[in-house]
Amino acid sequence: MTTRRDFLRNSAAAALGAALVSRAQAASLPEAPIQGSAATQPPFRPTEGRPYNPVVTLNGWTLPWRMKDGWKEFHLIAEPVVREIAPGMKAHLWGYNGQSPGPTIECVEGDKVRIFVTNKLPEHTTIHWHGILLPNGMDGVGGLNQPQIPSGKTYVYEFVMKKSGTFKYHPHADEMVQMAMGMMGFIVVHPRDPTQHGVDRDFVFLINAYDIDPGSYTPRVATMTEFNLWTWNSRAFPGIDPLVIGKGDRVRIRMGNLTMTSHPIHLHGYDFSVTCTDGGWVPPSAQWPEVTIDVPVGGMRAFEFVADEPGDWAFHCHKSHHTMGPMGHQVPTMIGVEQRGVAARINQLIPEYMTMGEKGMADMGAMEMPLPANTLPMMTGQGPFGPIEMGGMFTVVKVREGLARNDYNDPGWYQHPRGTVAYEAA
Amino acid sequence: MTTRRDFLRNSAAAALGAALVSRAQAASLPEAPIQGSAATQPPFRPTEGRPYNPVVTLNGWTLPWRMKDGWKEFHLIAEPVVREIAPGMKAHLWGYNGQSPGPTIECVEGDKVRIFVTNKLPEHTTIHWHGILLPNGMDGVGGLNQPQIPSGKTYVYEFVMKKSGTFKYHPHADEMVQMAMGMMGFIVVHPRDPTQHGVDRDFVFLINAYDIDPGSYTPRVATMTEFNLWTWNSRAFPGIDPLVIGKGDRVRIRMGNLTMTSHPIHLHGYDFSVTCTDGGWVPPSAQWPEVTIDVPVGGMRAFEFVADEPGDWAFHCHKSHHTMGPMGHQVPTMIGVEQRGVAARINQLIPEYMTMGEKGMADMGAMEMPLPANTLPMMTGQGPFGPIEMGGMFTVVKVREGLARNDYNDPGWYQHPRGTVAYEAA
Amino acid sequence: MTTRRDFLRNSAAAALGAALVSRAQAASLPEAPIQGSAATQPPFRPTEGRPYNPVVTLNGWTLPWRMKDGWKEFHLIAEPVVREIAPGMKAHLWGYNGQSPGPTIECVEGDKVRIFVTNKLPEHTTIHWHGILLPNGMDGVGGLNQPQIPSGKTYVYEFVMKKSGTFKYHPHADEMVQMAMGMMGFIVVHPRDPTQHGVDRDFVFLINAYDIDPGSYTPRVATMTEFNLWTWNSRAFPGIDPLVIGKGDRVRIRMGNLTMTSHPIHLHGYDFSVTCTDGGWVPPSAQWPEVTIDVPVGGMRAFEFVADEPGDWAFHCHKSHHTMGPMGHQVPTMIGVEQRGVAARINQLIPEYMTMGEKGMADMGAMEMPLPANTLPMMTGQGPFGPIEMGGMFTVVKVREGLARNDYNDPGWYQHPRGTVAYEAA
Repeated sequence: MTTRRDFLRNSAAAALGAALVSRAQAASLPEAPIQGSAATQPPFRPTEGRPYNPVVTLNGWTLPWRMKDGWKEFHLIAEPVVREIAPGMKAHLWGYNGQSPGPTIECVEGDKVRIFVTNKLPEHTTIHWHGILLPNGMDGVGGLNQPQIPSGKTYVYEFVMKKSGTFKYHPHADEMVQMAMGMMGFIVVHPRDPTQHGVDRDFVFLINAYDIDPGSYTPRVATMTEFNLWTWNSRAFPGIDPLVIGKGDRVRIRMGNLTMTSHPIHLHGYDFSVTCTDGGWVPPSAQWPEVTIDVPVGGMRAFEFVADEPGDWAFHCHKSHHTMGPMGHQVPTMIGVEQRGVAARINQLIPEYMTMGEKGMADMGAMEMPLPANTLPMMTGQGPFGPIEMGGMFTVVKVREGLARNDYNDPGWYQHPRGTVAYEAA
Repeated sequence: MTTRRDFLRNSAAAALGAALVSRAQAASLPEAPIQGSAATQPPFRPTEGRPYNPVVTLNGWTLPWRMKDGWKEFHLIAEPVVREIAPGMKAHLWGYNGQSPGPTIECVEGDKVRIFVTNKLPEHTTIHWHGILLPNGMDGVGGLNQPQIPSGKTYVYEFVMKKSGTFKYHPHADEMVQMAMGMMGFIVVHPRDPTQHGVDRDFVFLINAYDIDPGSYTPRVATMTEFNLWTWNSRAFPGIDPLVIGKGDRVRIRMGNLTMTSHPIHLHGYDFSVTCTDGGWVPPSAQWPEVTIDVPVGGMRAFEFVADEPGDWAFHCHKSHHTMGPMGHQVPTMIGVEQRGVAARINQLIPEYMTMGEKGMADMGAMEMPLPANTLPMMTGQGPFGPIEMGGMFTVVKVREGLARNDYNDPGWYQHPRGTVAYEAA
Repeated sequence: MTTRRDFLRNSAAAALGAALVSRAQAASLPEAPIQGSAATQPPFRPTEGRPYNPVVTLNGWTLPWRMKDGWKEFHLIAEPVVREIAPGMKAHLWGYNGQSPGPTIECVEGDKVRIFVTNKLPEHTTIHWHGILLPNGMDGVGGLNQPQIPSGKTYVYEFVMKKSGTFKYHPHADEMVQMAMGMMGFIVVHPRDPTQHGVDRDFVFLINAYDIDPGSYTPRVATMTEFNLWTWNSRAFPGIDPLVIGKGDRVRIRMGNLTMTSHPIHLHGYDFSVTCTDGGWVPPSAQWPEVTIDVPVGGMRAFEFVADEPGDWAFHCHKSHHTMGPMGHQVPTMIGVEQRGVAARINQLIPEYMTMGEKGMADMGAMEMPLPANTLPMMTGQGPFGPIEMGGMFTVVKVREGLARNDYNDPGWYQHPRGTVAYEAA
């Protein structure tokens, strides 16, 4: 048992009364459910514990738990996963319980929570509970608040949820690498009074980004600015599910950012206010009207609106490179450069040669370019009126009349009520 | 008539009852005025329609309109343009009605607005009316809310201005390319009650950026971070007009950001508050005192102050690279490197060789470096006390006593009231 | 006396009545204290002038002054300095009075302030008093508001502190270069009523960044995004002193950002509110609860909290590259790439060869890698439970019971009150 002996010898926890429990005790760990699908799962409605209005995790799920002696027990497994980023592209990431991001942890203000973390990664890890008020020994900074959790071990965190709000979890051990590999998740603490901050639809997702070379599967872990996969919950357009909303519903969307840059998230068709950060609920007197929420790195922003205008409303990051698939950024501009003569001559030598970009790049939204295996196109997507010409952090908020509260099925494209008019050029 | 047939065949609009009007009808389109100058135009004061206090667009203009059956009709032409970035440098951009950015659209809360968009670009386009509450079919996302507008066609948007505020227009078709080429404009919807939110001077401009190789004319369209022309309304210092203000005036400055990064805009000499975003007016209880406004990508920030302190006040982005002209960013540092010996030996071989940067770069603000054609210097500008050593997103707010309300003429440099004192080094 | 003659000939100040005083007068300049240490100095408590509660500058100090005829006289020396970034690494910077950043200037609302600036740099400079309301001629923009101060000269700024708050000073002459070299400092204007905005501990620091090639000493001055030393007050972890706080203290932390990107500063264990910007105090109705403050470029954010939970709380920028030491960003990912076979074969040729990154990078926090001289490791630091695996903008807020108000001595690591539990893998 070399690893355990090393752990005891190296870890200050030993001196602090930490207990390494036996295999027999280990057998009493709560079950660790594994999720095999990247599709949005229906809201998780527990049958015991304090009542609350559950959230929907975009292309994700909520972690089931068990109640034991008054504690809610969760079990997270840190492990390598294969995540489908969008149909046609899979990434080799690190995550929790089968997916990246990990499952959303939902509980209620005042809950006593015990979270078992089993490390199945090839290196040590920890979990920091970002934004939660807890005792210093539970804060999860490796080396500072605890020994890192070695490969093959399970660690237990215990704390009481002092206040409601929206928080994150992520490693604080080899942090840059483990976050660049996709290790992160959401924590929603519902108010003790379920009528407080009540909404009809409540969505959550994490903003993340990867740098995966075209044709490969594993992210580069040292990239600082030039990422090529801009994702929500490790999904890119057209792999991000639509947000399905009934007309007249009060809606909350909670977004956390764990990339290297801020993301100005823009919703079409509505104005709204930020009502919650990872520090707490924003009082009405302090709220600003917005149509774009700039979510800072490490931050969380929840905004609310009433969905009174039906239709298919674009919902995306407003940095235009973040609504594109993988692309080179150093290409020279071809706009206005007459390529016909050049192409004709090259075609004599290379018959399949194709010039591009002379008139802009709109053609690329429609035509099929040959791509390396496991690579998303630069611009893609088909809407009811033609190519949508997007990628990355883009999806659609679909507001429909007559939807039932629990209906999250994609209703298809909206046929807007009036036609449009086109003239010949004067 | 191949293009029309293609359009009918390819476009879902046909199935939705869209009407392609005849050339005869097309002849009834409103006039599309073209602007030939990059200078700030005086405020546009219409003689019909609801009264309002017009804005001044920095190095821009407001689009005239006609009233027809109770609708305000505007006509935008999307087309290639030549824009003077500053004296000595022109860019081949895409814009509207002769300039980039396009003209400011001004109207009044409650107005019924009809906007004809004629596409004279070599590829398709659309216009998204960023921040305006409108029916889904008018929202302008190509493929999602409408078919893209083919080259040579005119499309009509119609909606009612539900609320006052400050909005933007830009394409949502081949969006990254078309915005990188300069296609964008401002929309100001004035309050129905002209005394509401009233100010004495009301300026608007868009923050944008280009990557144009020294010596060339057309922007690279795939650049993500390393732009080299940081502009306001597609102008760079010293090409950005000063903001001329009478002492005691209440002033509003509205700024929209359509670059790839946030811009912290800093005004010297005053503190102020943000009073409006593209989501609406910020209530006084929520306003923060600031001297720098960080305008997020896709966002709009309007701030207000009373101009009670006369003088020439610097007004600029606080990212110091954004107040520089084109430059390389990978150059090694020469500070503290004694170059005299090196230069002497190189000079025997190359007589015109010049060393630089050994003591900093201040010399470059004063001396004339040989530059490629159509290229702005890295640092430039002459003030009343010597070289200003700036570029890019820099101009001056000129507060003067005794200016008439309508006087926007540059009053020249301010002679501040007291001298300065210099000692010899001790 | 060539330089003086040149100055008179070239400077518009001459025409404005500026007085060049004689060497005799120069001898009456106030003393310019020089700081030789990069350690946090105890708060400066003057014995004359209006009373106030002094601040503590993280790894910095406050500039002493003299009272003369009712004016507080300060003397700043702009000069090349050697700054220890962290033990084992020194940088050749430009700063003020022996260090970079310069000393904090503290005064009181209503104070008449005279600041002498002596230029010992190899090029001209100025000082802009960022955020302070003052006459136009004192604003410090070279060429616009004054002639630049030539090498070897002393310039005098005079103004009255109209309002309390937190401001910055930095050059507005060859600005990009001089700020990239470390020229900046803090100004704290205390309220006239010392009970207003009172706290028990009040810390200030500037967020800055450098690009110093491994093995070298002088920053590159043209870098725009890819900095490799992310610092607070020109110090990097583990060189940033801890913030020592007594349990129950009301704490204010004031942070100014003079880098090229925003920094989301995250404090563990607490939520808090921003109470002051460089524009003034934020009214309670406008405050948001936060656990991370995104400090925009050119901006200042002060936040407050009551330190009711003891322990060692991580305090850092949440952009994970900013809590790393120097590193390459284009390295390919090795995660999942089996290197044993490769290593074995290479080892036959090069016995000391070591593979890395196959399982993540956690090993690098613990092992000693050979580094170039004068270069900080990528991940470093030892806490009570092992390697902390951080760098750059990271330090620890140490909240302890029983500390005296004036005790800023590092109390060592916190032994948190409960042990932790680890299981064998199931």
